[in-house]
Amino acid sequence: MAPWGERLAGVRGVLLDISGVLYDSGAGGGTAIAGSVEAVARLKGSRLKVRFCTNESQKSRAELVGQLRRLGFDISEGEVTAPAPAACQILKERGLRPYLLIHDGVRSEFDQIDTSNPNCVVIADAGESFSYQNMNNAFQVLMELENPVLMSLGKGRYYKETSGLMLDVGPYMKALEYACGIKAEVVGKPSPEFFKSALQAIGVEAHQLLSM
Amino acid sequence: MAPWGERLAGVRGVLLDISGVLYDSGAGGGTAIAGSVEAVARLKGSRLKVRFCTNESQKSRAELVGQLRRLGFDISEGEVTAPAPAACQILKERGLRPYLLIHDGVRSEFDQIDTSNPNCVVIADAGESFSYQNMNNAFQVLMELENPVLMSLGKGRYYKETSGLMLDVGPYMKALEYACGIKAEVVGKPSPEFFKSALQAIGVEAHQLLSM
Repeated sequence: MAPWGERLAGVRGVLLDISGVLYDSGAGGGTAIAGSVEAVARLKGSRLKVRFCTNESQKSRAELVGQLRRLGFDISEGEVTAPAPAACQILKERGLRPYLLIHDGVRSEFDQIDTSNPNCVVIADAGESFSYQNMNNAFQVLMELENPVLMSLGKGRYYKETSGLMLDVGPYMKALEYACGIKAEVVGKPSPEFFKSALQAIGVEAHQLLSM
Repeated sequence: MAPWGERLAGVRGVLLDISGVLYDSGAGGGTAIAGSVEAVARLKGSRLKVRFCTNESQKSRAELVGQLRRLGFDISEGEVTAPAPAACQILKERGLRPYLLIHDGVRSEFDQIDTSNPNCVVIADAGESFSYQNMNNAFQVLMELENPVLMSLGKGRYYKETSGLMLDVGPYMKALEYACGIKAEVVGKPSPEFFKSALQAIGVEAHQLLSM
């Protein structure tokens, strides 16, 4: 691998993940990862454009940013690219009214979205809300549509909490795909459109980017 | 297609499905499909060997047979090939101790099975028991095993109840497969081993069989 000086030569912007990079989530708001508060401050004081790009979909941006600010990070809502607002934009553009199979913590992001008489399903890391009943509701909505649209906020397999490994949204996306014989549209990493929207927000091209 | 006389010439045995063929399940024990009680009686009075082969895995054979007998069918437990007892035989042969993600109605079939310190997972059409917590328990068991074994009783996508379409075991099997990066072993139809065990029970070869 090329030395840092060389690798950074053409770099104009930095995308920073949040969970596992800036902080570890957990009870009581989680803990900042050593050195990360200072690293963010230095990056924002440099000539580099900084954008926070996360697949967090159990919390609204407001809640996430509040948590990070309490840990000492210099971060505001407008600097965060997250799947829920990205999904809202797509829903509006395409006139889609979702059945929401999501965590209550992120529901406020969808406040402006019409969810009456649903013509698509949006699933996110819903945790305990992944009940049989809720999954079956989502399934029934999809089966009644001529062109079923399933939008998944990320497709992670699992993540780690202090209590152990936890199923993420991906397995439940696969379950609905198999049940309905369809393919989900993934909003969030690793979707190229999602990265592009983060880049557009800071006016940086992909080849000018450092992502971590 | 050849006429019936010709098709039946070499036939020595008949495999009969149960749900949707003999009866429609539903509230109050379901209803016999018109003509099916008499058809079973005639088949059993003929020279043909008869075996009932079902993927039913929400009920024990005892409960299923009791229900069918109340509807007028001449059927006994020993005439039924079902996934739960087939799975029990495999578990015993291979020294496997399952974490059971199953419906309470079929739990009695596993009475003789050691479930302490599990070294595999068995999932079946568990209905409401497909909670996030239970799915996560099954996932955690699999992730702690060096050679994770996931046994699925059938792999149906969904079935119909009077209240609407219901998710079957298949989508949940797919969820765990994706989460753990493994492939499930399916016990029940359409697994060839399952059909073979039904044929062995009546001493009939595959080419001598009529299945419906």
